[in-house]
Amino acid sequence: MRLRTAVLPLVALVVLSPAAGAGEESNVKSTSELVAIRDAALADDYAYQQVAHLTDNIGPRPSGSPQAEAAVEYVASELRRLGLEVRLEEVRVRRWMRGIDTAELREYPGQAPGTTQKIVVTALGGNTATPANGITAEVVVARNFAELQAMGREKVAGKIVAFDFPFDKRKAANGLSGEAYGEAVEYRATGAKIAAEMGAVACVVRSVGGADYRLPHTGWSAPTGIPAGAVTSEDADLLARLSVQGRVKMHLTLTSENGPEVLSHNVIGDLKGSEHPEQIVIVSGHLDSWDLGTGAIDDAAGVAVAMETAQLIQESHLHPRRTIRVIAWMDEENGGRGHDAYAVAHASEIGNHVAAIESDLGASHPLGFWAKVTPEALPLLKPAQEVLQSFGANLISRVEFSPGADIAPLAQAGVPALGIMQDGRTYFNYHHSAADTVDKIVPQELRENAAAMAVMGYALANLERPLPR
Amino acid sequence: MRLRTAVLPLVALVVLSPAAGAGEESNVKSTSELVAIRDAALADDYAYQQVAHLTDNIGPRPSGSPQAEAAVEYVASELRRLGLEVRLEEVRVRRWMRGIDTAELREYPGQAPGTTQKIVVTALGGNTATPANGITAEVVVARNFAELQAMGREKVAGKIVAFDFPFDKRKAANGLSGEAYGEAVEYRATGAKIAAEMGAVACVVRSVGGADYRLPHTGWSAPTGIPAGAVTSEDADLLARLSVQGRVKMHLTLTSENGPEVLSHNVIGDLKGSEHPEQIVIVSGHLDSWDLGTGAIDDAAGVAVAMETAQLIQESHLHPRRTIRVIAWMDEENGGRGHDAYAVAHASEIGNHVAAIESDLGASHPLGFWAKVTPEALPLLKPAQEVLQSFGANLISRVEFSPGADIAPLAQAGVPALGIMQDGRTYFNYHHSAADTVDKIVPQELRENAAAMAVMGYALANLERPLPR
Repeated sequence: MRLRTAVLPLVALVVLSPAAGAGEESNVKSTSELVAIRDAALADDYAYQQVAHLTDNIGPRPSGSPQAEAAVEYVASELRRLGLEVRLEEVRVRRWMRGIDTAELREYPGQAPGTTQKIVVTALGGNTATPANGITAEVVVARNFAELQAMGREKVAGKIVAFDFPFDKRKAANGLSGEAYGEAVEYRATGAKIAAEMGAVACVVRSVGGADYRLPHTGWSAPTGIPAGAVTSEDADLLARLSVQGRVKMHLTLTSENGPEVLSHNVIGDLKGSEHPEQIVIVSGHLDSWDLGTGAIDDAAGVAVAMETAQLIQESHLHPRRTIRVIAWMDEENGGRGHDAYAVAHASEIGNHVAAIESDLGASHPLGFWAKVTPEALPLLKPAQEVLQSFGANLISRVEFSPGADIAPLAQAGVPALGIMQDGRTYFNYHHSAADTVDKIVPQELRENAAAMAVMGYALANLERPLPR
Repeated sequence: MRLRTAVLPLVALVVLSPAAGAGEESNVKSTSELVAIRDAALADDYAYQQVAHLTDNIGPRPSGSPQAEAAVEYVASELRRLGLEVRLEEVRVRRWMRGIDTAELREYPGQAPGTTQKIVVTALGGNTATPANGITAEVVVARNFAELQAMGREKVAGKIVAFDFPFDKRKAANGLSGEAYGEAVEYRATGAKIAAEMGAVACVVRSVGGADYRLPHTGWSAPTGIPAGAVTSEDADLLARLSVQGRVKMHLTLTSENGPEVLSHNVIGDLKGSEHPEQIVIVSGHLDSWDLGTGAIDDAAGVAVAMETAQLIQESHLHPRRTIRVIAWMDEENGGRGHDAYAVAHASEIGNHVAAIESDLGASHPLGFWAKVTPEALPLLKPAQEVLQSFGANLISRVEFSPGADIAPLAQAGVPALGIMQDGRTYFNYHHSAADTVDKIVPQELRENAAAMAVMGYALANLERPLPR
């Protein structure tokens, strides 16, 4: 998950009333099919095996990397094995390669002679490199944009700006991780740009994440021309405390490289509809990841539950009326070239896209779906809601913006767009960090996500009439 | 905290009965003094300021480092400022210096062409370096010593042994962190030695710690002649999973250096007793730390609450009958040369040591004390217990072994030895890792530790007769 969809104004939260009964469009046969898909998903480890292969055997999958292409080949071959019509659609991506990430304080109050203090830092995606031997400059700490503006250009020019805006753990613990992320990620995304405009020579931001294990979180940053990194919350605290006491000088080395554009791919696998093969329901996650961890919760899990949707339908010998299209998106993290390329390539058939689902908030228990749909669409979601109620995945929260970065161009064009609403309380503890690894996934919770994606995907593909737009 | 005292057979747990009343030796005056010390401690941030200075301004303090000597100078000057008689007692320590710590998998099942998988590793203290460009060898994973033995020498020789013995998080969560640590730390302390004896070329152990944030935990390892590191729990899991699937080869670079012996110091500050100045009650923590974090919970906190004991007594204008001796021990982590040197230098006056207290399990809420004392000593501790009951620090758990590594030689010689029994449920999440930083300390809990140390220290120094031995 990158940043766009993190703050989701909640328009309407529709909890299924027990008295509500099935929606108008449901019938006994389709409900029993949904139940069969759900029960198969809740007993199946297919998705977990996919995540394990993508993360353990292939590893981190940054856009343009050999691992990303190995993952493309793997997902394509797996979808072919499931009997889907598979094609790779070209995406030109920028390859960004991490180099050396180090920082240390070279001057600070109370410093013992001949010593330095280590600062744990990671370069942000698209970072402008420092010289190979680093740069040294005084640090100015600003808690927010207003504080930096108030300092004025003469206090900022020539300095390293450190933004110390905290990720609000209390919001995250209360289920408002998207709000906590949305507030803080502004500093990661645009902090360096704003610092550069005021003459700073580099910028570090407090990592956007909720844990306190000296863990830096990387992520996308707007191109700026100055080096940009994220320090851990502990190191941001240290910079803040020391800079109150006196002058702090930091040596910063971030030698990442912006490589050339390379050819990559979205993986697209169609399970053709029996009545309306031209009408499409997308189930999807993104295949690329950041490089620090192995991208298990962000977002091998999303790809895996989309793959399992096809696997469950095939194993159950079901034939949805419309085409189920599994997409493993490329480049969600580093510019979104994958969904941009799809929007261009499929511009003429956007009208045939009945719905698009994405999973990109990890693999914890699904509470239901965020849905950018019309109010009139809600009753048509009820059969799926009813079936998902048995394990508590029956919330539908109607939202104004796309509930997934990769389905945003489709949502913008009017395609009903849904995103799985995972329990996100711990997601940002691991997100974009070295700790995003497969062990963070609870197998039973991943099964629940597969059930949610498959039940909703199949229900939408099997409606008598498409969702109203 | 290093390793010796982690598993503490519990001999007797003495909870103060509300009906018990004060011990025989107490009197109204001394109880009111203990209450005054407690209440002053619970409103005082002296200890926190000391930890902040030692960690933020001085930083990591490995034995023999310039930071360790800066800390020696700082604590000595601070104790002098409090009016103590201060001296530095020489300790010759071995300086071990971390170099580059990296590892990657160069061959593994499912590997994408031209790719590797990063393994997060940290060298263990006293490590034998790899060549500068590292070594590459096949990995054999053993869950425990028996599994390695069962493999036999021919399967182990020439390989990198990976011990995958887990720290038991459920024990730790249930207040049995010492047991969890004691079980797992055997692999860190002696795993490399045993692997070397079977012909291994290097050894990595699963980090001894409870968190899941890709955090490596360093610590002392017995000298072996082969490189020894700790990988994170996530990386140990990965090695275990991949090695079941097929051959795994790892490239390991650990370029630390065993430097020469250098001169360091225990800091000793005496607050002279008014009636029996020759009789000594030690209050202490250790000043050296590992190098990854800043050694806040291990063990700037212990030193700080010992310092605050003196500060509180001085500020309250109290005059204990016996001498309160504040000790900031050197080299607890890297061989224990500090307490060994003390035992030698003070051999002739061991009989005058009335009691020794150490704090070395962090800074969380104190539940009371572990006490290596005779059963007859317990009633004499009751006045302190009564005063500490107001904030729940009134347990006394009688134990057979020293409740602190640095007071072990004294305990062995029969000196009554006490260790603060902190809530240790999260201690080993941070212990010996980069995340041991001052923010992990809750100021109010540190105040409670200062109160526990000061009340117990003053009570022991003011008894009419010394504790029975």
